[in-house]
Parts: sequence; C-alpha cells; structure tokens
Amino acid sequence: MIELTLIGIGTGNPGHVTLQAVESMRGADLVLIPLKGGDKADLAGLRRHICHTHLQGTATRIAEFDLPLRDAGDPDYQGGVARWHDAIADAWESAIRAHLPAVSGRVALLVWGDPSLYDSSLRIANRLETRMALATRVIPGITAIQALCAAHAMPLNRIGAPVQITTGRRLRDHGWPEAADTVVVMLDGGCAFRSLPPQGIHIWWGAFLGMAEEITCAGPLAEAGPRIERLRAQARADHGWIMDIYLLRRG
Amino acid sequence: MIELTLIGIGTGNPGHVTLQAVESMRGADLVLIPLKGGDKADLAGLRRHICHTHLQGTATRIAEFDLPLRDAGDPDYQGGVARWHDAIADAWESAIRAHLPAVSGRVALLVWGDPSLYDSSLRIANRLETRMALATRVIPGITAIQALCAAHAMPLNRIGAPVQITTGRRLRDHGWPEAADTVVVMLDGGCAFRSLPPQGIHIWWGAFLGMAEEITCAGPLAEAGPRIERLRAQARADHGWIMDIYLLRRG
Repeated sequence: MIELTLIGIGTGNPGHVTLQAVESMRGADLVLIPLKGGDKADLAGLRRHICHTHLQGTATRIAEFDLPLRDAGDPDYQGGVARWHDAIADAWESAIRAHLPAVSGRVALLVWGDPSLYDSSLRIANRLETRMALATRVIPGITAIQALCAAHAMPLNRIGAPVQITTGRRLRDHGWPEAADTVVVMLDGGCAFRSLPPQGIHIWWGAFLGMAEEITCAGPLAEAGPRIERLRAQARADHGWIMDIYLLRRG
Repeated sequence: MIELTLIGIGTGNPGHVTLQAVESMRGADLVLIPLKGGDKADLAGLRRHICHTHLQGTATRIAEFDLPLRDAGDPDYQGGVARWHDAIADAWESAIRAHLPAVSGRVALLVWGDPSLYDSSLRIANRLETRMALATRVIPGITAIQALCAAHAMPLNRIGAPVQITTGRRLRDHGWPEAADTVVVMLDGGCAFRSLPPQGIHIWWGAFLGMAEEITCAGPLAEAGPRIERLRAQARADHGWIMDIYLLRRG
C-alpha cells in the first residue's frame, strides 16, 4: 500500500511551508520532485532547498523526475489536458516503482501553492489509484491568491461580497463574470485584462509572489495595465519563465 | 511607529501555522489575542497553545482583550459592520497603548484562516492608521477553503473552470451565482443551501476543519443536505458554537 501525501508548500517563499508540511515531509520514505521545463532551474532549486532544510536527520529519499510537457497547441483543450495527466501518472508510477519496488511506503509530493487550486496532482493521484493500492491525503498550502493579497496588504473580498476565481482564457473569451465585482485571474499566459474596457476597474498584480524576485504593481487598469504588460514582459525575459496572478475590482 | 503584522494561522490545526508566521510571532514585542463571545473557550485556548508553543525563549508579551460583539440584529448590515469595526479599532488601540505606551514597537495579531478572506483585520488596521503611525504587513495563512478541500482530498475547481466564493446570505437572497458551476459558501449561519433546488447539485461540507473536532459530510445535496443540517445542529449544540464551510458543484 502506498500512502501518498500531496503537500502544498506555498508560492516559493520557504517560509510559506507549514509545520504540518514539514512533519509530513519528514515522515515520508520518498519525496518526489517533478522538474518542469522552463522554470526548471529556479523552482527545482527552491524545492531542493526546502527538502534539504527539512529532511536533515531523516532517512527520507528524494527522487527528481522530468514532468512531461503539455502540448499547448492541442486544439482539444480538455482532451489534451487528460492525455497530459495520463503521461504524468506514468511518470509518478515509474518513480514510485523504481524507488519503492515493493510498492509500499509513504510518498510525499511537494505541490506549489495548494493541491486544490488549478493543480493537477489530485487528478493524477486518482489515476494512480486504479494502478496500485494507494491512499491519498492532502496537506493544504498557501495559494497565490493569499500571497497576492498579502503582498498588497489588501482584503480579497469587499464586506460580505462574493469573489470569482477564474482563468485568463475565460476572462478573454467570456468577459467580466457577472455576479461578482472582484475577480481573481490565474493561469493567464497573455495579459487577458487587455480584453476588458478598463473604465472603473482597478488591478492588483504580482509575479514570483513570496520569492526574492517578487514584483507587484497596482492602480486603475487604464494606466496600470500597460505598465504591468511591460513589467511582465521584462521579468519573463529576465527569468525565462513567469508565474503571476492578479485581482480586478470594479465599481 | 507601530509595525503591525496580521498573521494568518490557519483554521485551528496548530500544524497549519507557517514557518513565516512562527518567525513573525517570535519577532513581535506584543501579540494581541482577541477573545470572541461564543467560541471563547475553544478558540482562545487554541491561540494560547500556539503562542505558548512558539514564543518560548522570547520576550514577546501576550495581551488578550475582549472583542466587541457585532449587533447581528442591526437591519443596516453595512453600517452595522462599519460601527463594529470602529469598536474593534478602539479595542486594538487601547491594548496597544496599554502595553506599548511609547506607541512604538512590533505588534502581531493572530488571525484565523487568512487575513484577506472574510476577515475584518485589514479594515481595522486601516482605521488605526488614522490614529497612530502604523505600518501594516500581512503573513498569509491557510484558509477554510483549503482546509475543506484538503479534508475531502478534492480539487476546488474543475479543469480550467471558475469558482465563486460567496456567503450564505447571498446564496439565500440571490440563488446560484451564474458564471460558475462551483460555489464555495462561507459565513453561513443557517444552511442557505436549503434555498436551492437540489437536483444535480453535489455538496462537500466541513466544520471545525483541521481541529480535533473536525466533521465532514458529502453527497448529492438532496440526501446529504438534511444529514448536514442534523450534524450541524448537533455539533453546534455540543460545542456552543460552530465554524463551517461548504462547496457546491452542479452539472
């Protein structure tokens, strides 16, 4: 039986790690560290730093493996994501069988942010449950939403009012989601806020939140929007990758 | 100058506390612990436990103070909340001036969950900024939303799909918010999910999340809804208070 713990470790600040996360890492037989394409150097380094800080004095092994890349050009978005998750499940399975040949023990997987929010780990764990005896547990972590609000020292919601969490793709294709005057936009590869008429909208943006490289910018969308586009392009060129998020409020 | 740090400490599990939160608490001259009405015994005990665990060997002082109660019967909701926040600002100010008469030093305030989400601390800090030289900083914490998803080992969002965070009051008064098939409901004092036609809706509920008393329940709303109502009433009677949250998904 494999006990798999998906551990949210926050957005890149080693201080975002919770005491529960440290305890779970230290109790694991094996910690899996997926290596992504573009952000390999920076994020893998951070994960290694977190592991080496907290795993001292334990027998926990660390296994790094290359994460398959999603075919971003696949016109079938849902199908493409499903095939990508299948490929990641293959990679997890290989790493587990290689390091725990008896397919028994405690495996921990460190997840940026929180495993519940725009993250595929739970869906991949579900796939793995059909291939081996596996019980999945989740340790919650600080999300980019919290890190954004903390960086700007601002509330997410207006008093008693709702908040919509959505993606750049949906904002671009469907416009402002009705029923909320506050919208948090994640997974936006291309400044979808440009598609909105900016009047009466305020934006709070952040990239590399919690990390030493953190950048923030805020203001009325009409004037802050173009500034954010420039900052984002520059930061992406400097780092070779970017992880950002923003909050829009109207009225 | 007062440096005020609002520290998110998660939903009641001492393991939700982050390393950054511990560091901030230990660096403070004064930690303020507000005592609420109904939940006084349980939650104040948890806060004290967190303080005593992490403040050992420091000179940090701890000050408890009674939090004014909101007049829940006030028909002017927004005005009533504003007056309540004014009263809390008075309480903070008195506690700070009593323990730091030079009105200088580092003050930490422990906030359940995260200071950005349906929490008044940032708004009260803004009021205090008009009364004394004050700089506010936020340390993000695990929210009840993360704790709920972790307890059910489930994703918050469907793949690439939006999520609405709202309140019990809004769900009851405005029905299902369009533009999202996933709705998280907070601040619900009275099972507002009863106001929805239950067909095609699934519910995931949790109370006292992360605490030893944690209770969860999930299922199709038509059958799980009445079960949750009973569980909630019983738990509230047993503890004298309740803190709960739920996620609804349709389609």
